[in-house]
Amino acid sequence: MPRYALLLEYDGGPFSGWQRQRALSSVQGAVEAALGRLEPGPHTIAAAGRTDAGVHATGQVAHVDLARSWSPFRLSEALNAQLRPNPVAVLAVAEVGEDFHARFSAIERRYLFRILERRAPPVVECGRVWQVKSALDLDAMRAGAAHLIGTHDFTTFRSTLCQAASPVKTLDEIVIDEIAVPGGREIRFRLRARSFLHNQVRSIVGSLERVGTGAWAPKDVARALAACDRAACGPVCPPQGLYLAAVGYPADPFA
Amino acid sequence: MPRYALLLEYDGGPFSGWQRQRALSSVQGAVEAALGRLEPGPHTIAAAGRTDAGVHATGQVAHVDLARSWSPFRLSEALNAQLRPNPVAVLAVAEVGEDFHARFSAIERRYLFRILERRAPPVVECGRVWQVKSALDLDAMRAGAAHLIGTHDFTTFRSTLCQAASPVKTLDEIVIDEIAVPGGREIRFRLRARSFLHNQVRSIVGSLERVGTGAWAPKDVARALAACDRAACGPVCPPQGLYLAAVGYPADPFA
Repeated sequence: MPRYALLLEYDGGPFSGWQRQRALSSVQGAVEAALGRLEPGPHTIAAAGRTDAGVHATGQVAHVDLARSWSPFRLSEALNAQLRPNPVAVLAVAEVGEDFHARFSAIERRYLFRILERRAPPVVECGRVWQVKSALDLDAMRAGAAHLIGTHDFTTFRSTLCQAASPVKTLDEIVIDEIAVPGGREIRFRLRARSFLHNQVRSIVGSLERVGTGAWAPKDVARALAACDRAACGPVCPPQGLYLAAVGYPADPFA
Repeated sequence: MPRYALLLEYDGGPFSGWQRQRALSSVQGAVEAALGRLEPGPHTIAAAGRTDAGVHATGQVAHVDLARSWSPFRLSEALNAQLRPNPVAVLAVAEVGEDFHARFSAIERRYLFRILERRAPPVVECGRVWQVKSALDLDAMRAGAAHLIGTHDFTTFRSTLCQAASPVKTLDEIVIDEIAVPGGREIRFRLRARSFLHNQVRSIVGSLERVGTGAWAPKDVARALAACDRAACGPVCPPQGLYLAAVGYPADPFA
């Protein structure tokens, strides 16, 4: 059976998350149902990142085995037609070898978190950003973030529901920049690692927001990390500002 | 009565347009209703640009006269509270002189039009862009746009419903640039003029899209303009890619 890698974009708002769940609407369920309208199923697809309820993706990768051979272009067009009106789009399809696994072959994940810093509520970007009304100190947040770069026990910054075998992860990069938007500014956090723990990005950004407001000093991030205690974490931020932006493989299947 | 200028953002999707209409939901109606919950009305507000159904704004300006004196900050906060859940936000409020009129004092309008050039449908930006599946030639569109800069009779590029006394307008600028987005690119048209005719931006962008696909040569834009005939216009593009981005005054009331 030929195997296909799918590059996916979705609005996480209406979904209970990536993972298929009985009686709940999921991104996985929507894609599998669309596949079922192309070829008799059941189909089971695997994804690089199992995003939570409300979390978006602009660069999720999944793979599927199909009985017949499809040209990548035709499979992409057929899936987009079948996915409507679900807010899920197939940006690209590639035929890959049977050794390719969307999750286990991945060597890098990139997440974007968007904060809208302004008093007025988000309107055009409603459901796409986390609104913070306080002025945030970017340099302080960058100083706090620097404590997290490298290989650490991230127990403080993972959900108690996290199923990863080890809390030790290597965080390669946190870039924080800003762009002016009407009435305020948008602050963008870009995080890069081989893999992340459950709720790690939202736990980190939630803690850095505390630094940004001045409630925490930058060195409090180092203290929270060293505590290896979930209770030391700042508030986990809401999902609507989070995007799985890209997944890296030893060879880019879509290149 | 003190007069206040309001800087407004809205998602045009759910509205029949800026202008209040009996039995239809309008942005003007939503703002006037919110004002009515702060002070007994009726209130009638005037806006710099009467945007059409489905057209967004990130920098609309309106003005209102109120019986009592408000601090700009408190008025802005109170209006945002009363506007919920309408997708309209007050980004700033300024007290202005009685000679200030949001429409008649304006000396410049800036519009943004966003095209998403890719095969896959917009998902995260659904309702915020116009999707075009063909590859567009930016240089050709720029060459076509150059014919429109300056003072011309824009009869070809205005709605037959346009109520402006004269079809002669001065178009100061059309800037066309691109940004990479997942699976394709976004093409942004930025137009600047003292004022625009009804449907002028959508008529211009729709015609330039024809140039981008190669259906029109750049010089066909000059021919269409010279025809002074609505029938010579390209297809008017849909409203969801259009944003009233900014309004200019001799002195910026929000500075």
